Amino acid sequence: MTTMDILIKAKAAAPTLAQTDTEQKNRALYAMAESLEAETEAILQANILDMEAAHDTISPVMMDRLALSAERIRAMADGIRQVAALPDPVGRIRRRVERPNGIIIEQVGVAMGVIAIIYESRPNVTSDAAALAIKAGSACVLRGGKEAFRSANAIVTAMQAGLEAADLPAELVQLVQDTTRVSAQELMTAVGFVDLLIPRGGAGLIRAVTENAKVPCIQTGTGICHVYVDKDADQSKALQIIENAKTSRPSVCNAEEVCLVHRDIAAEFLPKLKTRLVDDRIEDGKTPVELRLDPSAALLIDGTPAGPHDFDTEFLDHILAVAVVDSAEEAMGHIAMHSTGHSDAIVTENEETAERFTKVVDSAAVYVNCSTRFTDGGEFGLGCEMGISTQKLHARGPMGLEELTCYKYIIRGNGQVR
Amino acid sequence: MTTMDILIKAKAAAPTLAQTDTEQKNRALYAMAESLEAETEAILQANILDMEAAHDTISPVMMDRLALSAERIRAMADGIRQVAALPDPVGRIRRRVERPNGIIIEQVGVAMGVIAIIYESRPNVTSDAAALAIKAGSACVLRGGKEAFRSANAIVTAMQAGLEAADLPAELVQLVQDTTRVSAQELMTAVGFVDLLIPRGGAGLIRAVTENAKVPCIQTGTGICHVYVDKDADQSKALQIIENAKTSRPSVCNAEEVCLVHRDIAAEFLPKLKTRLVDDRIEDGKTPVELRLDPSAALLIDGTPAGPHDFDTEFLDHILAVAVVDSAEEAMGHIAMHSTGHSDAIVTENEETAERFTKVVDSAAVYVNCSTRFTDGGEFGLGCEMGISTQKLHARGPMGLEELTCYKYIIRGNGQVR
Repeated sequence: MTTMDILIKAKAAAPTLAQTDTEQKNRALYAMAESLEAETEAILQANILDMEAAHDTISPVMMDRLALSAERIRAMADGIRQVAALPDPVGRIRRRVERPNGIIIEQVGVAMGVIAIIYESRPNVTSDAAALAIKAGSACVLRGGKEAFRSANAIVTAMQAGLEAADLPAELVQLVQDTTRVSAQELMTAVGFVDLLIPRGGAGLIRAVTENAKVPCIQTGTGICHVYVDKDADQSKALQIIENAKTSRPSVCNAEEVCLVHRDIAAEFLPKLKTRLVDDRIEDGKTPVELRLDPSAALLIDGTPAGPHDFDTEFLDHILAVAVVDSAEEAMGHIAMHSTGHSDAIVTENEETAERFTKVVDSAAVYVNCSTRFTDGGEFGLGCEMGISTQKLHARGPMGLEELTCYKYIIRGNGQVR
Repeated sequence: MTTMDILIKAKAAAPTLAQTDTEQKNRALYAMAESLEAETEAILQANILDMEAAHDTISPVMMDRLALSAERIRAMADGIRQVAALPDPVGRIRRRVERPNGIIIEQVGVAMGVIAIIYESRPNVTSDAAALAIKAGSACVLRGGKEAFRSANAIVTAMQAGLEAADLPAELVQLVQDTTRVSAQELMTAVGFVDLLIPRGGAGLIRAVTENAKVPCIQTGTGICHVYVDKDADQSKALQIIENAKTSRPSVCNAEEVCLVHRDIAAEFLPKLKTRLVDDRIEDGKTPVELRLDPSAALLIDGTPAGPHDFDTEFLDHILAVAVVDSAEEAMGHIAMHSTGHSDAIVTENEETAERFTKVVDSAAVYVNCSTRFTDGGEFGLGCEMGISTQKLHARGPMGLEELTCYKYIIRGNGQVR
């Protein structure tokens, strides 16, 4: 089937789902989860073929992302069940006002229609994205990476069986068969067929979407996240936050990439930072962090001299760029220049400085005295998420079910005219 | 100044305004209003030059839209003062949650940054748009039509004086000097300089934006609005609603363009409709409505046979396309096919049919037993509006101050890590 065939089917199926009640949607989600578990064998076989084909071309980290197991499939099914348990955003009355003329205006949550998602090699995104789209009342068209195609196909087939078991059309969840750039381009330009496109991937994909997309998009972004250690910081908190933000999961978008330190405390703090991120970690048998230092920091501790791109790179690795700044204002200026607007933090006990930082820093999530790693739908209490938006239109930060819907106004009267 | 020069200045000035408190913003708005009135003479002189230049090229309706008077300028100034009186969306805490780990997450309204508006010949849009942008904390870059350039320039100059009187930079409100398509194209593609582009205009502008825009946009739309008269309608309400929706102001986007009538009542209702919209209006010395009838309607009343485009045209005139449908479902199907998703209405006393209609019709505003003319920021209680969004992303329906802002998350902790 061509991508356009798939979109036509999705568009035709979408209105049914948009008007399906919560109970039936949840029944479909539970059936999808059950079907996924029932098809474990078929999914694992498809995954083995993917793994064999990808073996020579992708890195061990990517291989690990690609690999499925019975346990991972169970976790995917549980993920779907968790979505079923979340409140339904469709039909929710967000605002209600009765006007002096007696008309009653309600702003009501409604489905987007067709949500298309472009993603890469993690097979679990297939079920996560489908579950969120279905609960949000939208048909979904999935376009995964070619390395995971067979796995994704088996997962989608299983989920379609679940939809049909709950008397909903299988076309509500479809996988694009073409994994070349052509299909991504088709999704970006399918005006009238895609109501929301969510690209999940690296900087190259995001750039392509910014350049080419003609359908409504939400970009889920790269994160060059900063932690600024103010002169009034509690330094032990700062060490704990930085170690967590940098090392708890370096490959994710909310990991810290840059540390800025106020000059007044740099001579005291930077040696402690090196001890914590390098020496202690070596001693504990953990991966040490490579510090890339600006000239001022390099005068105070050992490390790699920072290159020209180190303050503009999402390392996604055990690497931290470190710079010394003269003031909180300089830190905010640096962040304005280099941040991707994802998550940025200040560590300070000075409330006034913290207040200024939260006002001035123009990022989706601005932290005071805690780790940037909290930028996550689950951690924010949204239940789960479709990704982290780094744009300002429609949704910013973690996108839960609410952010995957829109609204309409329903106005009821008794013959009123203007 | 080139358009890019203007954008660079706007981007530089925007952060100041984003952090300006409500009191100072309001002071600036009052000063802008006062300055507008003080410069009445200069604005009227510029307007006379615009009128003279446009005299031979634009229609009388357009000439009327272009014309200013001391009274109209006073109304513009009052419009600015009304915006000052509205609640400030910036800094408003939209959601707040304390998580089990003790971090406090607030979703806080923030300014977009730079809002660009492309509009046409009505000079009052210049002051309305600027006032809304300023109150929403964003710098604004205005690109009006060439017919109104001198007027808009005089208005912007007056407003800039007001900004400066309130100690804010004049660059917060700027007018693009080039009124050719080149500048519109520049605004659409100024990635990183325009945080929100609002095109206000006809179908051609909207198409150009859909095709070419690379910056975030909200389209304010054309309205092919429908009123469906159900078999269970109170016919006197239907007549009142249709006359109001069609004739109270035919040139606006929330005016009715199409009337659908259930077959069971068509023979009774259509003659009454013709009497109300044609015969009575002629008798009362009002402009009668030209009825463009589908074949079934043409069997029942006199009128113009509907041509192939009459159900897909925003007439903006005393013209109404009329069709007979076999069921509420057929009406909803017709609306799904032909509506621009602006405002559509049902007239029925059957609550079940009304409920189905409000669920199924996928438009920004769906009405039961009242006029589509209520789709308006003022009528909805938003105070005023920047236009009516017909898209689903970010804002749908009337866009007030809230819809001209976005949000960020501010997370406060005490050393928490994940």
